[in-house]
Amino acid sequence: MRIIPVILSGGGGTRLWPMSTPECPKQFQALAGDQTMFQMTAERTRDPNIFTPPMIVTGAAHAQIAGQQLNAIGIDTATLLLEPCARNTAPAIALAALAAEHPEAPLLVMPSDHVIADTKAFLAAVDAALPLVMAGWLATFGITATSPETGYGYIQMADEIGAGVNRVARFVEKPDAEKAAEMIASGDHVWNGGIFLFRADHYLAALAEFSPAMLAAAKNAMENAARVDQKIYPDMDAFAASPSDSIDYAVMEKADKVAVVPANIGWSDLGSWDALYELEQKPQLENILEIDGNGNLIRSDGIRIHTAGVEDMIIIANGNDLLIVPRGKSQDVKKIVEALQKKAAPK
Amino acid sequence: MRIIPVILSGGGGTRLWPMSTPECPKQFQALAGDQTMFQMTAERTRDPNIFTPPMIVTGAAHAQIAGQQLNAIGIDTATLLLEPCARNTAPAIALAALAAEHPEAPLLVMPSDHVIADTKAFLAAVDAALPLVMAGWLATFGITATSPETGYGYIQMADEIGAGVNRVARFVEKPDAEKAAEMIASGDHVWNGGIFLFRADHYLAALAEFSPAMLAAAKNAMENAARVDQKIYPDMDAFAASPSDSIDYAVMEKADKVAVVPANIGWSDLGSWDALYELEQKPQLENILEIDGNGNLIRSDGIRIHTAGVEDMIIIANGNDLLIVPRGKSQDVKKIVEALQKKAAPK
Repeated sequence: MRIIPVILSGGGGTRLWPMSTPECPKQFQALAGDQTMFQMTAERTRDPNIFTPPMIVTGAAHAQIAGQQLNAIGIDTATLLLEPCARNTAPAIALAALAAEHPEAPLLVMPSDHVIADTKAFLAAVDAALPLVMAGWLATFGITATSPETGYGYIQMADEIGAGVNRVARFVEKPDAEKAAEMIASGDHVWNGGIFLFRADHYLAALAEFSPAMLAAAKNAMENAARVDQKIYPDMDAFAASPSDSIDYAVMEKADKVAVVPANIGWSDLGSWDALYELEQKPQLENILEIDGNGNLIRSDGIRIHTAGVEDMIIIANGNDLLIVPRGKSQDVKKIVEALQKKAAPK
Repeated sequence: MRIIPVILSGGGGTRLWPMSTPECPKQFQALAGDQTMFQMTAERTRDPNIFTPPMIVTGAAHAQIAGQQLNAIGIDTATLLLEPCARNTAPAIALAALAAEHPEAPLLVMPSDHVIADTKAFLAAVDAALPLVMAGWLATFGITATSPETGYGYIQMADEIGAGVNRVARFVEKPDAEKAAEMIASGDHVWNGGIFLFRADHYLAALAEFSPAMLAAAKNAMENAARVDQKIYPDMDAFAASPSDSIDYAVMEKADKVAVVPANIGWSDLGSWDALYELEQKPQLENILEIDGNGNLIRSDGIRIHTAGVEDMIIIANGNDLLIVPRGKSQDVKKIVEALQKKAAPK
């Protein structure tokens, strides 16, 4: 049975502001290559021997851009599940599980805004998990932790239960620096990359056990969904009645048979401009002039940026907004976004 | 007899690029206050008891903006002398001297792109020079030299020949750093600010002696000039025949009776973005967001600039161009302008 790629594209994060905005979140932008991250996610699971066409779960506002970007890379058979409102990942995945033609089909759930440099290693990890998944396990993928990041969740691995697959000992929420360093030192912790593999029916069974209200809402929303070509519009009122929760909290941390596949796949969540810099992309040449510069990340969608003697800066122009922060301080983007939101808020 | 302010506005410098461009040079921009530097220059010499309406010498391409900016501050009686081509300052001033109603009228020649913070001290210096000027001296104003700048010309002062006025011992071209330091240490050197006071007839007599071809060309250009309202268009072919030279080389360094008035007038030639920073202007508030910033000069005519943790940078947006250089390196703007000119040049 082929795997159904489920691409979650509901995020509207602002950590890559001003490029990433609610109107055009980062997954729909070519930040890390010639294709957008959304397109790269779809490309990654395109082998028709292994995968069905993808299901896209995204906000109704992004139906058009998602469809256009898939068409641009020759994918015209995707199913678009258009969330009428945001209810976090657990209900979003429930919609996909309910839309699966065969209840026992395995779903490969992937965020659309992450970079995975080593597709081969990624597909090998999926392949390793598949036998256990078909036998009833819910699998997650554990990213090799290379530094004591405080911005990620961690997964502690227990015994190996199959070739290259371990039982999950526990999930750890975003830790403080000390705890993160301990986990890195322990050697048996990996980052939670938010990528999952399980059968549709097993996921729905777990929901029935741990969050029946969520399952009921998703079912109701799908039973009353409008369908236009390959687009599915779940019923707004029914879906809005669902509790809002992440798959980690709602299911993975509660279920019994949870496996983790440690995977060294060149992963980055591109959670900051510094993270994009670390990918060491080719410099943008058009619209940029750097004289005696070093260590800068400079991007512009329009205005011509001219620098001389500038070092270790992040300079991003998009539309009528320009961001400048020193490298290593790109988390301060959130201070800027907050200040702008405060300014824009009605008094 | 009242003094005729002669405002030289032919410059099209690029040291304040991207704000200053050939189309709108820095003197026509409000870089150092609410008014443009051109307007501030006109305001400085507006007392009708002392000054006639001004004569503006500028390129024909800037006739409209100069007229509009004068009208905006209520000056509608200026004479506009519109150079058909650029021949440096000596011929430009010759046009003004020839346009003076009374040959013996004193001309106060001023660049339009300098800042003079202390107008009172400036007018006092003019007043000090006037008796000697009426008696035949060509006067220049010597700016108190506060640091060993290598970008300015220097004037060595000889004996005092009147209250607060000295004979010029010599003019020194832009020196190297060592020579500049020696001159500062000597105590008898001042910067050449490019401001002059002399009678029209005495200037023309000096030209007749030292550069008769220039005088002939200017006379010919004025005799064949077109006149429209208060605009004078000197004849193009006649003016183009003039040698191109600065007043310093053509006249001041050669004439015998040359005086200098040392003047501490809060002068800046705004020759770089660093110089503008030193004026400690109020920060621009509109379109700019600075979080945890310090020591920056940030200006934008449009795009919203958002910074966090940025220190000691010069960030200037104008139209479709953005400049970023560290403070102290704004002379590198010329590298950028050269690179752009090279790129734009036909292959």
